[in-house]
Parts: sequence; C-alpha cells; structure tokens
Amino acid sequence: MVKMIRLDFESIRDISSSIDPERMRAKAEEAQRILEGRTGEGSDFLGWLELPVQISEGEIHALEEMASSIQKTEALVVIGIGGSYLGTRSILSALTKPFTSKSLPVYFAGWQMDALYHKDLLSLLKGKKYFLNMISKSGSTLEPALAFRFFWNDLEKRYSSKELQELVAVTTDSSKGSLRKFTDNHSLPSFIIPDDIGGRFSVFTPVALLPLAAAGINIRKLLEGAAEMRMILQQTQFTENPALQYAAYRHSSYNSCKKIEILAVYQACLGSFAEWWKQLFGESEGKDGKGIFPTSVNLSSDLHSLGQWIQEGERSVFETVLDIEEAGELEIPYEAKDEDHLNYLSKRKLHDVNRTALKAVLKAHQSGGVPCLRISLEKLDEKNLGALMYFFMYSCAVSAYMLGVNPFDQPGVESYKKNMFRLLGKP
Amino acid sequence: MVKMIRLDFESIRDISSSIDPERMRAKAEEAQRILEGRTGEGSDFLGWLELPVQISEGEIHALEEMASSIQKTEALVVIGIGGSYLGTRSILSALTKPFTSKSLPVYFAGWQMDALYHKDLLSLLKGKKYFLNMISKSGSTLEPALAFRFFWNDLEKRYSSKELQELVAVTTDSSKGSLRKFTDNHSLPSFIIPDDIGGRFSVFTPVALLPLAAAGINIRKLLEGAAEMRMILQQTQFTENPALQYAAYRHSSYNSCKKIEILAVYQACLGSFAEWWKQLFGESEGKDGKGIFPTSVNLSSDLHSLGQWIQEGERSVFETVLDIEEAGELEIPYEAKDEDHLNYLSKRKLHDVNRTALKAVLKAHQSGGVPCLRISLEKLDEKNLGALMYFFMYSCAVSAYMLGVNPFDQPGVESYKKNMFRLLGKP
Repeated sequence: MVKMIRLDFESIRDISSSIDPERMRAKAEEAQRILEGRTGEGSDFLGWLELPVQISEGEIHALEEMASSIQKTEALVVIGIGGSYLGTRSILSALTKPFTSKSLPVYFAGWQMDALYHKDLLSLLKGKKYFLNMISKSGSTLEPALAFRFFWNDLEKRYSSKELQELVAVTTDSSKGSLRKFTDNHSLPSFIIPDDIGGRFSVFTPVALLPLAAAGINIRKLLEGAAEMRMILQQTQFTENPALQYAAYRHSSYNSCKKIEILAVYQACLGSFAEWWKQLFGESEGKDGKGIFPTSVNLSSDLHSLGQWIQEGERSVFETVLDIEEAGELEIPYEAKDEDHLNYLSKRKLHDVNRTALKAVLKAHQSGGVPCLRISLEKLDEKNLGALMYFFMYSCAVSAYMLGVNPFDQPGVESYKKNMFRLLGKP
Repeated sequence: MVKMIRLDFESIRDISSSIDPERMRAKAEEAQRILEGRTGEGSDFLGWLELPVQISEGEIHALEEMASSIQKTEALVVIGIGGSYLGTRSILSALTKPFTSKSLPVYFAGWQMDALYHKDLLSLLKGKKYFLNMISKSGSTLEPALAFRFFWNDLEKRYSSKELQELVAVTTDSSKGSLRKFTDNHSLPSFIIPDDIGGRFSVFTPVALLPLAAAGINIRKLLEGAAEMRMILQQTQFTENPALQYAAYRHSSYNSCKKIEILAVYQACLGSFAEWWKQLFGESEGKDGKGIFPTSVNLSSDLHSLGQWIQEGERSVFETVLDIEEAGELEIPYEAKDEDHLNYLSKRKLHDVNRTALKAVLKAHQSGGVPCLRISLEKLDEKNLGALMYFFMYSCAVSAYMLGVNPFDQPGVESYKKNMFRLLGKP
C-alpha cells in the first residue's frame, strides 16, 4: 500500500512520553469506530466519507463538459463564502503558477462585503464575456447573495435569457431554497451540494470540482488521491494510520495545555491551503468552550515576524509543518567574484536550501519547547493534494469526536447572522 | 487637536470593570515615561520615535527623485524579508486597487526561499526592463541575499555596469556589512537604514518610503499623518491618549488570561496590514516566556471559518476590530422581480451593509464572552494610514515595557539561523 503522507514524530518525543500513548490510541480508535459506524453526533453529515470512492463517471463527465464550455469565456467568477471557496482557492493557489499561469483567470467574489473589492472587480470585467458560478446551499447567506445580485445584474443587462444559460451555472441544493427556485425559473444549469456534506467538507463535490476543472486542474487525479487515502485510513491499524496518529497527537497536545496549533508552510503557494485547514479544524472543534486554536505561518518569512513569539513566547503552542519534498528546479548561480560570500551554495537547488531551513527551524523550535510534527508530501500535484485534504478531513472528524464535540455543526455562526439581519431590518 | 483614531471601549465594559483601571493607567504612564525618557531596555533603537517629525525636505526629495526614475521602468522588484517588506506591502495593498491599478507593478522577492515562486517571477520578468531595490541592513540574511543573487545575475547579463547604476538601488547600513561594500564597489545609488531603527519599526524610513513613492503613494501625506499622531501621543493625557489606552487594555486583558488577540479587518485590502501588525506585536512582546499571541481574521469571510471558534471555543481570546468609516461607493441594485428577496437592501451602499455586519459581530462576540475593542478610522488614505501605523508602533512599545520585556530586540530569531548555517555548511 502506497504511503502518500509520512508523519515524522521524531521531534515530539518529549510530549508523547509525557502522556499515555496506549490511552490515546484507544481513544482515537474509539472515535474512528464512531465515525465509520456513523453512530456519533452529526452522522447525517458523513456524505464526504465515501464520496471520492463513490463518485460516478457520469458526474465527473458532466463537470468536465461544463468546464469546457466555461473555458470558452474570458474569465470565471466564483461566488461563495467559507467552504464554498476556501478549498477551491487553496488547490488553485497550490497548483497554478503565481505570475505566468496561462489557465483561465478565476476571481472570487462574495466571500466578504468589501465595496472597494467588488467595485474594482466589476470594473475589471466591464464588457468582458465572463462565466459566473454561484455557490450557496440555501441562497440566503448574505455575502454571496449580494455579490450574485451585482454580477447577475451586470450580465442581465448585456445578454438575453437564452445567452445567460450559457454563462451562469449554480451549485446549490437539489430541491430547497431561494437559489434553487431562481435556478429553475431561469433554466440555468446546476450542480448539487448533497444534503449530507457540510461546507468545510465539500472540496470533493461540485462546489470545488467545477471551478477547478474550468481552471485546468485534473479533478480525476484529485479524486484518485482522496480515494487512495480513504482506503489507507479505513483499512490500516493505528501504527500505520496517519490520520489516527495525528488526531491522537493533537488530542494529547491539547490535554498538555498546548492550546494553539500552528500550521507552518514553506511554499508561498500554500498560504491559501492554511486558510482551508484553519476553517476545517476551527469550525469543527471550536465549540462548547473547547478546541485548539488553529493558526498558520508562512515560513521562512514569518521567522522574521511571529518566529520570535514561537521561539520564546508563551509555551502554549505546537507546530505542524508541511514538508514538500520536491518543489521547483531553480539552481543558485555561481558568481566569480563571490561578493556576497554565497558561493558555498552555488549550483545547489534553492528548494534544498529551503528544506534545510525547515529542518533548522524544527530543531530550533523543539529546543525552545515547541513540539513539532512534520507531515511530508512527495510533491504538490493533484493526487497528493487530494490525499492530503482527505487525510486532514478524516483526522479532523476523529479529533473532534475525541474532544467530545460534534464535528459537523457550526451553531456559533448563527449568532452574528441573527444580529445582522435584525440591524439591517430584514422583513 | 484632531482625533484621527477613535477607540470604542463600549463593548469591553465587562473586562475593564474586573481590573483596576487606576493601576493600569499608572503602569501605562510609567511605561510611557520610560519610552519618552529613553531609559528602558533597547533605548538605542528609538530612532523611529521622532522620525516622522524630523525627516528633512532633502531626504524626501531624494526619495521622490529616485522614485521618478524607477517609474521609467516596467516593474519594481523589492527584495526584503520581515520588516523590510511587510510595511510596504501593507500600505500598497491598502491604497492600491486590487484589479485595475495603473501604478507601477511591484513584486516582492526574497521574503522566503520558495523555488516555484522565484522561478516564476524570473520568467515573468524575462527580457523586461525592471528596477531592483535590495533592502537588507547587513546583507547577510540568507533569504534576501539569495534572491538578490538571482536578480542581480539576471540584470548583469543584460546591462553594463553603468546601466546597472540606473536599475538597482540598495537600502542598507551607512557603513558596515557586505551589502554596503557591494554597493560602493558597484557605485550603486543607496539609501540608509538608520542604526537606531529596527526592521518592524522601519516603515517611515527609505525601507518602505522608496518603493511606496515609486508605486505612486504620497509619502509626504503618510509622514504627515504619522507626525500628527506623534504630537497627539506625546502631548495628551491618558484619558485622551489612544496609544496608552490600547496598551493598558491589552495588558489588563493579558492579565485576565486573554492570551490571544485577534485583529479583525473587514476590508479585503487590509489582510496584509494584519501581517504587519502581527510582526510588530509578536516580535516585540513574544519573549521571556511571555506575550499575547497576535493573530488576525478577514471578516466577514472568516465568520464562516474561525468565527465558530471565536464565538464558542476556548474563552482565551480578545478581539480588536478595525472599522473604516468610508470605503468605496457601490450601491446595491434594485431588481424588479426581487427573486432573492434582497430588495429591502436595494439602493443602500454595500459598505454600509458591511459595517452593519461589523456591528452585529461585535455584539455577537461580546455576548459570547469575547471582549471587543473597535478602532475607527475615517478612511483609508495615506494620512490616516500613517497615523494608524505610528499609533500601533507607539502603543506596542508602551505595551512591551508594561510587560517588562525589551520591545526592540529579537533574540529568538537567531536560533534557527545558527542551525541553518551549520546545516548548510557555511564556511
């Protein structure tokens, strides 16, 4: 069996010796039984568990067909908030060149209500033939609903009803909600957000798969990676099971008063991935007065920022490092005069130097009393990324069950909505 | 006297009643005396304190002259890490249109060692006539030094020594270090990083002023805002002094076991500002096993992410909200059919709805046991931003002295460097 992800606990011997490993193992295995047996709280929301294995050729084909027609336009505007855009954005950033990408440009709207941002995006797209993908389960979440009004209004002025059916696709509920009604009224093509999959677990549904396919991402490989990881996590024992180990490790860290987890990435393109990860863990575990606070750093940059706090601040933190073994070929040039005294590194790969920094930081933080876990991935491609995301989703569900909370609800998100609609005078 | 920044403590009555306000006031005033009297630890690094007031017309003029010649090229590459790019990037993001800016494109390099990122940036600039601004106090910090080798190597192949003097400017030490030597050897134009100003306090030095001026930012207004704030903070009593109040509030929050401070922004363009703020506070206070952990959220987006944790997770957090009173004119359109039921908002400004969300969230978080402070700014322009940054810098110094740490050193940053240079086999 392929081990797509390797966990390196070497640098956390200290913490694991201070807790009872057998008890943690038993607790993680019990949480897994609850998850796989669908007997825990929120078990109506387990559609994501088998999805990468069960998705049909017909569904994939339909997404690819729609993606082809999106690619005939000049740009794609994706409207969505939270789980409706974080997964898409993280995969796009990780797999697209930052400056010279030739793929269809993708713009995200409705993830906030910033007027400057939306006004300028409308200016950019003025007169352009772009495609609009509106993503919302109910249609009533204010941020995407308002953004949709702006962009629909713009397109409606320029195109006939018939033409709009070629320029707008809606990803929403199969039967309920105002957006479903709108979609049917205008005979727009649509894709379904299943009832049993919540936003932060929706990266392998059309929510992300449609815009990703339109941007040229190989969604079959993404699903393949997730499906392979599904098999590994379902079938292997604790000692070979990275998701159970990671959940057990997090739980014991939390019990040892390590209340902040920092995800550290060393690739500029993984900044958005960290945002997806923060939503996944923060929204799943942060309830009932409990939960690790998930945060992130972009290294080595942030060593010259939060690095000082991590090294010598309060000892309430543990660090999880994403180590990408292969990433980009760029050789450090030789300079005859060596005025910067860096010839000892010439002809070496920049990525190797970056990984050396990673190892040096692990050692430094460990000496400073920060337990560190390294998660290694061979490279950044669709398959590995699909596996990594499935790994985190599974581990998150196990971890939340270990903590004794429902991994799949988000009751706290309602509080501000109620206040907001009242202040806005919603009828 | 103009009050450029307004603090609203209404929503934190609970916490301020639980601590002794007189004791906090006395402690903040004592810390201010240490700062202004230059009697505390790190007082050799107080050059930033009077800088906005003392900077000469000659210095500003020289920066503007160089900026004009940079603007004759096709792009500006700024090489720097930590304080050498975070301030510049935060002001640029805050004041430049995200999609349709007509200013000179500015690219940041050397803030990490990601091979994919640097390779693609080199591809983008291949054959283009760009300007290179290298920023490093010593020249020996590995990330910017390596990036400089790549870009210098590229330019050197294409231009004569004489031409390079028109395409490269160095911001570095006045006399010491390998970069100063390099600069003199090649007769490159240079700007000085003063000895008494550390990286995270350098936003009003040529470190940020040169690239900002090149990108069309009005640096005179920026300095004017900072100078006005300098006068306010130096001359007003505690009850009128936002920096002392903010420092006292943070200190009492920390003493009440609120160990995480979340900076919440509601403008997409302020995401980078939060990164600057995190470095300022994290690196100044995170030492000796102490210090609030500074983190940030982009709202309303992150309400559908970390919002759940903030609302109902561990009660170890307090929130500081940046409220921008005016930001962008974008009116919500009227739709005759009202299929989305949003006509109750039509003809209203999107920014007003965004600020209503801000108020609703303040209430929700406060009810959830999260003390909230609102910092209001009239609008995002050079003057207000200059004032805001000076306010945070001053407040940070006061806050660190209240905590009993040196605000101006970063001993922990050395740990990883030592390990890294050993692993890399530096001679």
